[in-house]
Amino acid sequence: MSQFNVGFVIFPGITQLDLTGPFEVLSRLATPASMSVPSRFPQAKTFVAAKTMAPAVSDRGLLLLPDCTFEDCPPLDLICVPGGAGIIDALADVETIGFIRHQAANARYVTSVSIGAFLHGAAGVLKGRRATTHWAHTDLLPLVGATHEKARIVRDGNIFTSAGVSAGIDFAFAIVAELAGPEVAKAIQLSIEYDPAPPFDAGHPDKASEAAVALMVQRNAAAHAGIEQALGRLSMSAN
Amino acid sequence: MSQFNVGFVIFPGITQLDLTGPFEVLSRLATPASMSVPSRFPQAKTFVAAKTMAPAVSDRGLLLLPDCTFEDCPPLDLICVPGGAGIIDALADVETIGFIRHQAANARYVTSVSIGAFLHGAAGVLKGRRATTHWAHTDLLPLVGATHEKARIVRDGNIFTSAGVSAGIDFAFAIVAELAGPEVAKAIQLSIEYDPAPPFDAGHPDKASEAAVALMVQRNAAAHAGIEQALGRLSMSAN
Repeated sequence: MSQFNVGFVIFPGITQLDLTGPFEVLSRLATPASMSVPSRFPQAKTFVAAKTMAPAVSDRGLLLLPDCTFEDCPPLDLICVPGGAGIIDALADVETIGFIRHQAANARYVTSVSIGAFLHGAAGVLKGRRATTHWAHTDLLPLVGATHEKARIVRDGNIFTSAGVSAGIDFAFAIVAELAGPEVAKAIQLSIEYDPAPPFDAGHPDKASEAAVALMVQRNAAAHAGIEQALGRLSMSAN
Repeated sequence: MSQFNVGFVIFPGITQLDLTGPFEVLSRLATPASMSVPSRFPQAKTFVAAKTMAPAVSDRGLLLLPDCTFEDCPPLDLICVPGGAGIIDALADVETIGFIRHQAANARYVTSVSIGAFLHGAAGVLKGRRATTHWAHTDLLPLVGATHEKARIVRDGNIFTSAGVSAGIDFAFAIVAELAGPEVAKAIQLSIEYDPAPPFDAGHPDKASEAAVALMVQRNAAAHAGIEQALGRLSMSAN
């Protein structure tokens, strides 16, 4: 294997950290030669694929540009699908789901961050699999035939799903360790000084106050209903 | 105060997570009304400012678009300057340094992630201040008149500098707590499920192997020399 293609799917309304977190880690596999760490890993190349070459505006207003269209994107060794409220439209988009289905069928690694899991779900990828997603939406996983496993990163065969947003960074290190070994993962961790020290310990419902959880469930209600409806429509059209 | 302007500086060769990490956190201050957490914080608005409206390619190939030029950017309440090897060219760019100097002079909060600190340094912002930067470049802080303090986030008055790359996420939560209170920071932490669980504990030189540190010092040597030279030229032209 001379080149390992790592592809990210991008769409309007993406939660940008779902993509940019793992991108920062995985793109550092692109320079293993200068890394001089013993590694069995070949050259990596990243792709950011979208339906069109137009800028994609994130759900919070950051402007990202794809570097290829779904049509131009080469076969991917690893496909990573991020989330964001934009998945509700993407779930109804035949080309987006078709791209994911096609690439996932041939990729060595099929991965998602946060509610990107439901795009894999719509593509049929998660049927009979253990998986996770953003904590506010884990109850919807059975709608795509998956069983929720409570973990920050869930691996079932070649499928890696991760929890909400920032979990994509931890997932990416797990993938790097799998692909290139722990020493390369540790070198990349040092290069981005990933020694996290959140000023609060409230990043999971088990640790947050009941009020904060209730508030976030309420704030996620529209997205939750939107995903549920979009998956319902898909299921009806499949019958 | 009716609107709080949060501005990020962008340039070619940026390390994108330096920007996208804090952007994901700080941009969530833009919806405090629907957050219904007791907060003294007004509406936030983000700006991504560059010399021109051209896409900026990150040091690892991600394409980001600014949403305003330095000229169009309104006065910022908070300016955040990211790093990346691209700062070497930016250090020599009169318009970039001029923008930072002008905005920093009037902002309530002056902040940087990783080696973005040296752009503030070139703008004269760090003279006589305690500060930090990416671990591989902390020894260069005296060149801009700053004293290195060994911490992930260093606050000196209204200046927040943060350590390498991923430290920008932790910094952003500290800023949110300062601006809007700890309950808002915790709500945002829960919304991005920021409950970090790196598979390895090697994100700081104190924790990494000697071999990994030596390797990363070697890999950073060109950037280190480039920053040193660029700062030397600035110092000469100031004399």
